[in-house]
Amino acid sequence: MKIVQNRSHRPKPRLSRFARNLLEEWRRLDLPTSEATIVVAVSGGADSAALLLALDEIIKQEKLRLKLVVAHLDHGLRTESRKDAKWVKSLAKDLGHDAASSRVELGQTSKRKPNLEQAARNARYEFLFKTATRKKSKLVLTAHTLDDQAETILLRLLRGSAAEGLAGTASVRELMPGSEIKLVRPLLGWARRDETVDYCQARSIEFRNDEMNNDETFSRVKVRKQLLPLMKSFNNRIVEALSRTAALLSEDAEALASQARVLLDLAGRKGDKNETELPSLNVSILLAAPGAVRRRVLRQWILQARGDLRRVERVHLLAVEKLIEGATGGRVAELPGGMKVTRNRGILELSGKKRLKKNPPTSKIPTL
Amino acid sequence: MKIVQNRSHRPKPRLSRFARNLLEEWRRLDLPTSEATIVVAVSGGADSAALLLALDEIIKQEKLRLKLVVAHLDHGLRTESRKDAKWVKSLAKDLGHDAASSRVELGQTSKRKPNLEQAARNARYEFLFKTATRKKSKLVLTAHTLDDQAETILLRLLRGSAAEGLAGTASVRELMPGSEIKLVRPLLGWARRDETVDYCQARSIEFRNDEMNNDETFSRVKVRKQLLPLMKSFNNRIVEALSRTAALLSEDAEALASQARVLLDLAGRKGDKNETELPSLNVSILLAAPGAVRRRVLRQWILQARGDLRRVERVHLLAVEKLIEGATGGRVAELPGGMKVTRNRGILELSGKKRLKKNPPTSKIPTL
Repeated sequence: MKIVQNRSHRPKPRLSRFARNLLEEWRRLDLPTSEATIVVAVSGGADSAALLLALDEIIKQEKLRLKLVVAHLDHGLRTESRKDAKWVKSLAKDLGHDAASSRVELGQTSKRKPNLEQAARNARYEFLFKTATRKKSKLVLTAHTLDDQAETILLRLLRGSAAEGLAGTASVRELMPGSEIKLVRPLLGWARRDETVDYCQARSIEFRNDEMNNDETFSRVKVRKQLLPLMKSFNNRIVEALSRTAALLSEDAEALASQARVLLDLAGRKGDKNETELPSLNVSILLAAPGAVRRRVLRQWILQARGDLRRVERVHLLAVEKLIEGATGGRVAELPGGMKVTRNRGILELSGKKRLKKNPPTSKIPTL
Repeated sequence: MKIVQNRSHRPKPRLSRFARNLLEEWRRLDLPTSEATIVVAVSGGADSAALLLALDEIIKQEKLRLKLVVAHLDHGLRTESRKDAKWVKSLAKDLGHDAASSRVELGQTSKRKPNLEQAARNARYEFLFKTATRKKSKLVLTAHTLDDQAETILLRLLRGSAAEGLAGTASVRELMPGSEIKLVRPLLGWARRDETVDYCQARSIEFRNDEMNNDETFSRVKVRKQLLPLMKSFNNRIVEALSRTAALLSEDAEALASQARVLLDLAGRKGDKNETELPSLNVSILLAAPGAVRRRVLRQWILQARGDLRRVERVHLLAVEKLIEGATGGRVAELPGGMKVTRNRGILELSGKKRLKKNPPTSKIPTL
């Protein structure tokens, strides 16, 4: 029998409410509680500073036995960014955690905002991936909050997304497609941005402000500064309401996707073997499925054959559905990028060149 | 062989684009093309005036052989409302169609906007129901547009609705629960409000303006006047985008609801017969279902036993889910209004008093 001794005779301070909430979410997400190295992405803003401080609080009170690596990427986009990098490094040092930082020069990239946002995101995720690999960590944390989730849902809604898009961002997913390293957002499910500010202030930490967070030519900032406040005038708890909707739609999308996978397997196996290696689908099996499932089977099928769904829009799927229903409009439906779907004796076939994958498709890079 | 003669030797004018679009939707919805009496709800605003004028155009060009009844309810809420009633009656007469009108005094009702809106809606649907019954019509038309659909979706989103709510309004449904009379919205799927205005102007009809459409203390008006214009500054085709989302979520909800019905049947039949007549559910069958389907089985089950889902919130369903998962929290979950769900040897049971149905639950009255 092993006796565990209290290392100190002083009574330990209670965990702050913010840290308690984080610990609760940590357990809910079934994250490791000991012997793991965790990479925490810290920009220096209130959200990520609060995440780091709360983890630090939990670790120092020995509720979790984890090694932290504080990761910061300087995107080289703002004059202040070198100071941010220094500030994060010094916070990590003061708290006694490892730090990893790097700098890229995105200032040279396209000035078009969407491209710039995308380039910054890609650079950040690549840096986090490299850092985690180097530090032998299987877990990367980002500090996205409930407010970020609400903004994401609205941005998707503004584009007319389906359930998958409106489901928002998942709290846990692969950092890169197929990667063993997980990306976890332990604030996403519960923390309001205001709470992160309050918590930093309670800990007397003067977090950094990113002036790009105030640039309303970025759609996300405009959602934050204009759309959400207007929606709040209808419902004071709009952020929570959006997040609830996202959680429900996420469950719906998951159930329907899993049915689609079963059906794709079923419809695929019954098809003729074809020599081009592109799978074929049995039309009568598709016909028996409800529209919502059939649409997902077709998307999964095209994704398999093509490697991505870029530029595949509702109109293309509708053309394929017309083939399935045997309605007017011929026996061929064209997909963007040169592939074709043909109906032939009760079998749907995909043909045409597969796109060469030079770069990983950007649509697979996490978008938040 | 029967020879059909042209009744006139003048070439017929072509149908206007608005009327052509309406006729196309009429066919898509598989509505009757002859020998039917159709009640058209006409307030006198641009939307309903355009619907009436376009139907009139189509009938006069003999593309449809239908009898119209122009129905108008004066809600007695505005000083102008008697003039509206007179205007609608005279338009119907000029066009050569039957008219049916009535007046209620809602001015006495609660001044609280939601109650007033609800009371006006109830009075209107009751009037339409009576008119259709009296005229032996199986079809009531209202002139809701794509813009109304977008507003509905946003109002639901503001409340944090699930897919069923975000699916918006259906183009065809029962006028009242269980009724043979159908409520059809033949503009909902395609017509923008601006198009109805343009079409009325092209036909030189000076439609009426309802000043309540400008009263921003009504949430719907505030959505129309503030929220949609702001969203349009992100996406010029936001109304179409919202409508597309609604159509996709509607398909999702339908697929999941139909699975839930199958599962409810399955889980119910395997349960013990119980003498209170309230059905019981087999827990292990529920456990095997994905969350999205299980949630819908529970809602359908409670709806069956209770007659409605009023005040049944996510929190109540979560409590029942905990019973199912056998997690902490005892073996009983309370529902609002006095009913209870109990888990007993692998069976979920509902007990407690059924609510007496004095009035039909307002939640079943169409909300648009």
